[in-house]
Amino acid sequence: MPQGRFSGSLCSPKIDVVIDMGNPFLNRTVDGFLKIGAVGACKVAAEETFECLNKGDISKRKVEHTLKKMCQEGAYWGTVAGVYVGMVYGVERVRGRSDWNAMIGGALSGALISGASNNNKDKIIKDAITAGAVATAVEFINYLT
Amino acid sequence: MPQGRFSGSLCSPKIDVVIDMGNPFLNRTVDGFLKIGAVGACKVAAEETFECLNKGDISKRKVEHTLKKMCQEGAYWGTVAGVYVGMVYGVERVRGRSDWNAMIGGALSGALISGASNNNKDKIIKDAITAGAVATAVEFINYLT
Repeated sequence: MPQGRFSGSLCSPKIDVVIDMGNPFLNRTVDGFLKIGAVGACKVAAEETFECLNKGDISKRKVEHTLKKMCQEGAYWGTVAGVYVGMVYGVERVRGRSDWNAMIGGALSGALISGASNNNKDKIIKDAITAGAVATAVEFINYLT
Repeated sequence: MPQGRFSGSLCSPKIDVVIDMGNPFLNRTVDGFLKIGAVGACKVAAEETFECLNKGDISKRKVEHTLKKMCQEGAYWGTVAGVYVGMVYGVERVRGRSDWNAMIGGALSGALISGASNNNKDKIIKDAITAGAVATAVEFINYLT
């Protein structure tokens, strides 16, 4: 007896825009950039929406400002994530092990991003330490959740 | 023929201090607090060591200051992680699904921690948005690395 059935499901966080750059290192970096960039842009959109609702003020200028901020913040989050994901992959390839790569990758990414922002030597090293610690903390959190 | 052999290995990031509180929710929270608190304390230790080496100034006062800062920052990192891990576990139990729990758990933790710091309502909501976005970004990064 034929039955009609409807089934739907909302899957786990997943965006799949696959761009093949012909190189696993580049693929991961671009993937990280796009996905985390999207998260950063969504965060700004949510924040600005809340602000608009709160103040009851929606104007063309405000929307333009929001779009600009979404692009800026999205690009920043994306860059940080792309550099980190690429670094972890690179460190894994070079070391051939997968133990403390998150820390090393985080520290290298922190140093690179800090260096690119024209910071002085001390600030770069401190940023590297902080980024390494954050990456290690995130690794631990993965095991716990 | 008997052979003598020495084998050693350094394992992946792993600290195992297991404290059983008799409740999975509390266990996870305490686990998160201890592990991430240790990472936070290590970060301060590394930072302060670098500063000492850089300035060539090691005094009793400096060491005391470092220890105090390690405790403060360790407690802060640990609290944030404990609340987050507990929230994710709680949300998973309540919802019975494991799709967007990181985002929901992150947003709830952000709101809770922001609220505990005596922020006003607007700041709490913005912190919740930011924390949710960061937790989602971390989830995505997990899939990538």
